[in-house]
Amino acid sequence: MINESAAWRELEAHAAELSQRHLRELFAAEPDRQACFTRHAAGLTLDLSKQRWSAETLTHLLALAEQAGVPGAIERLLAGERVNVSEDRPALHTALRLPAEASLVVEGEDLVPAVHRTLERMTEMVALFHAGQWRGATGKPIRDVVNLGVGGSDLGPLMVTHALTDYRPDDVHTIEVHFASTMDGSQLADYLLRLNPETTLFVLSSKSFTTIDTLSNANTARDWLMARLAGGDGVDTALIMRQHFIGVSASTEKMNEWGIAPAHQLEFWEWVGGRYSLWGAIGLPIALVTGMSHFRALLTGAHAMDRHFRETPMADNLPVLLALAGIWNVNFLDIRAHSILPYDGRLEYFAAYLEQLEMESNGKSVTHEGREVGYATCPVLWGQLGPNAQHAFYQLLHQGTQAVECDFIAPLRRYDRVEDAATRAHLKGQHRLTLANCFAQSRVLMLGDDAIDDDGPRPGHKRYRGNQPSSTLLLDELTPSTLGALIALYEHKVFVQATIWGINPFDQWGVELGKKIAGETQRILESHQGLATMDASTRALIEAAWAAEESL
Amino acid sequence: MINESAAWRELEAHAAELSQRHLRELFAAEPDRQACFTRHAAGLTLDLSKQRWSAETLTHLLALAEQAGVPGAIERLLAGERVNVSEDRPALHTALRLPAEASLVVEGEDLVPAVHRTLERMTEMVALFHAGQWRGATGKPIRDVVNLGVGGSDLGPLMVTHALTDYRPDDVHTIEVHFASTMDGSQLADYLLRLNPETTLFVLSSKSFTTIDTLSNANTARDWLMARLAGGDGVDTALIMRQHFIGVSASTEKMNEWGIAPAHQLEFWEWVGGRYSLWGAIGLPIALVTGMSHFRALLTGAHAMDRHFRETPMADNLPVLLALAGIWNVNFLDIRAHSILPYDGRLEYFAAYLEQLEMESNGKSVTHEGREVGYATCPVLWGQLGPNAQHAFYQLLHQGTQAVECDFIAPLRRYDRVEDAATRAHLKGQHRLTLANCFAQSRVLMLGDDAIDDDGPRPGHKRYRGNQPSSTLLLDELTPSTLGALIALYEHKVFVQATIWGINPFDQWGVELGKKIAGETQRILESHQGLATMDASTRALIEAAWAAEESL
Repeated sequence: MINESAAWRELEAHAAELSQRHLRELFAAEPDRQACFTRHAAGLTLDLSKQRWSAETLTHLLALAEQAGVPGAIERLLAGERVNVSEDRPALHTALRLPAEASLVVEGEDLVPAVHRTLERMTEMVALFHAGQWRGATGKPIRDVVNLGVGGSDLGPLMVTHALTDYRPDDVHTIEVHFASTMDGSQLADYLLRLNPETTLFVLSSKSFTTIDTLSNANTARDWLMARLAGGDGVDTALIMRQHFIGVSASTEKMNEWGIAPAHQLEFWEWVGGRYSLWGAIGLPIALVTGMSHFRALLTGAHAMDRHFRETPMADNLPVLLALAGIWNVNFLDIRAHSILPYDGRLEYFAAYLEQLEMESNGKSVTHEGREVGYATCPVLWGQLGPNAQHAFYQLLHQGTQAVECDFIAPLRRYDRVEDAATRAHLKGQHRLTLANCFAQSRVLMLGDDAIDDDGPRPGHKRYRGNQPSSTLLLDELTPSTLGALIALYEHKVFVQATIWGINPFDQWGVELGKKIAGETQRILESHQGLATMDASTRALIEAAWAAEESL
Repeated sequence: MINESAAWRELEAHAAELSQRHLRELFAAEPDRQACFTRHAAGLTLDLSKQRWSAETLTHLLALAEQAGVPGAIERLLAGERVNVSEDRPALHTALRLPAEASLVVEGEDLVPAVHRTLERMTEMVALFHAGQWRGATGKPIRDVVNLGVGGSDLGPLMVTHALTDYRPDDVHTIEVHFASTMDGSQLADYLLRLNPETTLFVLSSKSFTTIDTLSNANTARDWLMARLAGGDGVDTALIMRQHFIGVSASTEKMNEWGIAPAHQLEFWEWVGGRYSLWGAIGLPIALVTGMSHFRALLTGAHAMDRHFRETPMADNLPVLLALAGIWNVNFLDIRAHSILPYDGRLEYFAAYLEQLEMESNGKSVTHEGREVGYATCPVLWGQLGPNAQHAFYQLLHQGTQAVECDFIAPLRRYDRVEDAATRAHLKGQHRLTLANCFAQSRVLMLGDDAIDDDGPRPGHKRYRGNQPSSTLLLDELTPSTLGALIALYEHKVFVQATIWGINPFDQWGVELGKKIAGETQRILESHQGLATMDASTRALIEAAWAAEESL
C-alpha cells in the first residue's frame, strides 16, 4: 500500500511541520514562488502557487508519484493495456482523439481507422441536418433534436454544447438541441408540450442500451410520435422509427431490438467509459450545435493535452501537478472538499461534469488487489459559476470552519467577435470585472485579513482567516480546442490520483447494487408483493406511496 | 460555549459508544424505530429513522437544544426581536407570509399592512401582464420578462418558478420569464440575441441596488433597449424606462437614481435577508409564471410550517428534528458533507438554493460574542437530481472513503392532472420508477451488502459498507403550498442549528471583503496602476490579462 511507502511517511512528517505555516508566510518565504508553481500547455496556464505547499513539498510528492509508478501507468493507459482491471479492458478515450494519420495497435488491431469511420459517419449525418435534408416522416426538415441519455451520455454533451454556443456555424439550417435525462419524465414532458412531432428527432444515447432512465423516456417519446404521426391516415411506423430516432450505443443488438434503423445507429466501444465518451458518437449533439469542424477542434485540443501528458516530465506535467496538489490536500492536510469555480457563464455545467468525472472515477475504497485502502481517496467535489457562488456559498469558504480546496477557472480573452462596437465594449467591461473578481477571491482566500491595508481592530465577525488553498487555471480563450484540453487535463488528473491511490478509476460497481435493489423495489411497488422482505423504514415509505395512489 | 455544556459532553460520550454500531444493528435493535423517528406536518412527512442514532441520542440532542435555548430563540425570531445582532435588526421573512388578518407589532409598528400592500401592488402588476395590458414603449404587450438579480434575488425565484411550471394559469396572456445572473454577461448576451426589445421587460432585483453583477447586466440591457427603440425616430427614452423596467429593492433612493419609474418600484425591507426574500416582491417572477393565487398558496404553506415551528414541542417539531440530525452528524460523527437529492425533475434548482441558504447562513466561525467556535459548523452541502446523481456521484456515496449525510426528497403523488390517458399512464409509471429508485438508494446506503439476499463471497470492489445516514422527506404532492412548507422547513432548520452553534445565520460578512478587494483589483486592471501592492501570484495573473488584451 502506498501509505506504507517511505515517500508517504516523509510527506506526513513534512506536513506536520508545514501545516503550521500560513499561506501568506509561504509566499513571503519564497519570492520565486509564482514562477516555480506555474506551467503552460495546450492554451492553458496553471498557477499552483496558492496551494499550501512549498518547493520541498513538490519534491516529496514527485517522489511519491514515482514510487506509485505514475510514468509507467501513463504509458500503459495510452498504449491500450487493460488498465480497467475489474472489467478486464483498456480505457481508451484518448484513442477517440488521435489524428487520422496516427495508428494505435491494441491486441493486434489498429483502432484509429474505426474511430475515424465513426467520425466520417457523424460528418455525413451532421451535413444532412445542417442542409435541412434530414426530414421527418411527413417530409419536413428536422429542427429540434432531443438527446435522451443520462450520466456520461448527458453531462458531457450538455456541458460542451453550452460552453461552445458562440461557435454555432451561421450559414446552416439551425438545429436546436435539447437534453432530457431525468427518469421521472419531467424534462421530456415539458419538451413534448412544446415541440412539433413532425420536426423533432430523438437521439438515444446509452452505452449498454439498457439504462432504464433513458429507455423509459425513449418509450414515452416513441408513443408520443406514434400517437401524433401514425394515427388514422398517418404515416408508416417504420418511416417514423427511421427518420425520428438515432441510436448511440456499444450494443448493436439492443439497438436493433428497440427498433433503431441500422443506418441510423452509431457505435462506440466497450473500451470507452461512459463518463469519458463525449469524444465520439456520444458527442453527436455537440457536432449538431457547433458543426463538425469545431467538434474536430475539440478533439485536437484534447489530443494536444494527451501528448503533453505523455511526453512531459512529471515536474512540468499539468495533469500530474494538478493531481499532486489534490493528493497533498486530501491525504496530508485532511481537506475533504473541493470546489470548482469557473468565471465564465458558458462553463455553467462544468462543475456538474467534473462531479461525475471525479467522484464516479475515484469514489472508491479498495485497491486493484481488493484490499481496503487505509487513507482517504476522492474528496466531495462541487461547484457553481464563481461570480454566482460569491453570492451563495463563498461565505463558508471565507469564514466557515472547514478547509476547502478551490479551482478558479477563467478565459483571458473574451467577446472579441461581438460585431456591434458598443455592445462589445460593454461586454468586454463585464469580462474585465469578472476577471477582477476571480483574481480577488483567490487572493482573499489566501491572505484573509492581510488582503486589507488598514487592518485595525475589528470584531470577530469581520475577521478572515485566509489560508484556503486554490489553483488558478487560465484559458488563453475559451475555444473548442482549449475546452478539449481543459477536459483532458481533468481526465488525466483523475487517472494520476487513482494510480497513486492504487484504485481503478474506470469501473463503477458502486452503482450496480443500487440498480438491482431499485428493480426489486419497483416490483414490490407494482405488484404489492414481497413487502415483508424490506426494513421497517422502507416498508413504511412504500405503504405511503400505495396510500397516495389509493387516495385518488 | 455550547461545547462546554454537560449536554454536549454527554453526547460525546454517547457518540463514542454508538458510532461503533452499524445502522443495520440499530434497526434490528429498535423494532419501533420507523414510527419513533417519523413525523408529519404541513403536507410533509419526515423519516429520520435512517440516521445513525437511537432514541437515546435524540433525548440527549433535545437536552442540548434546550440548553442552547432553542425554544426561546424561536419565540424571539418570530416576534421580531433583533436576532441579527451584527447588523442590529430583526430577521422577519416569516412576516412576509402572515395572513392579512394577522398582526405583528415590532417596535411599535404593525408590519402586516405594509406586507399586504406590497402583495396588492404585485397583484395589480401581474393582472396587467396577464391581461396583455402591460405594453412596451412601442405599444406591444410585453411577452418576455428577464429577471436581473444574483444570489437571493436569483436562486429563490429561479428554483420556485421551475418547480411550479405545472401551475401556470392557462387562460392568461403568456409571459415567458428568464433569469440572467452572471456578471460576465453570458446569459444576458444570449437573451439579447433572441428577444424582441419591443416586448421585453427587465426586473432589476437587488436589496441594496448596488450589486455590481446585477447593475452591470442592467446597464447592458438599458443600452440595448435604447439603441433599438430610441434611435432615429424612436420613442421617448422616459417611456422606455417606465415600460421596460421594474425595480425591486430596499432602497427607493438608489432605484430613483438609476431611473426606475416610481410607479414601477417594489419595495422590501431591511429586515428581510436576501436569501430569505422570495416571499415578497423578489418573488415577482414566480407570480408572473404561476399567477398570484398560486403565489399566495406558496405563502400559506410556508406560514403553516411557521405555525408548526412555533407551536409544536421540540420532540415533534420537523425543523428542530432535521436540525438535530445535522448537528449529530457534523459535531459528533464528524461527517462534513451533506448531499441534497430530490427525486423530481421540477426540483432541479433546489440543491443550488439550499447551498446558499445553508452555507451562506451557517458558514460562520465566531459566536455572537465574537469568540472563535471550537467545533465544526455548516458542512459542505451540494446535490443534484437524485436519479441523475445515481449516474454521477453516488459511486462515492456507496464506495468512497468519506461519510456523507443525504436528504432524499420526493412527492408521493404526481401527474394526476395530465389530460391524455395514455400519456398519463406512461408518466405515472415513470413516477413509480422514480420512487422505487429513491427508496432503494436510501436502503442500500443504510444496509450495504446486507441489502442483497445472496451475500456470498465477492471481490472487494463489489462490496458495500453501508452505514451512510440519510433523511427521507416525502411531499404528499408538489404544490405551491407544500413547496412553501418545504422551503420554510429548511429555513428554520438553519436557524435552529445556528442557535445551537451560537452563530448569527442572518449576516454575511464573509462576502464583504471579497467585494472590496474585487473593486481594487478591477481598478488596477483598468488603470494599470498599483500592481506592486499585490502578491506575486496575483501580479502575474493581472499581467497575463493585460498581455491577452494587447495581443489583439
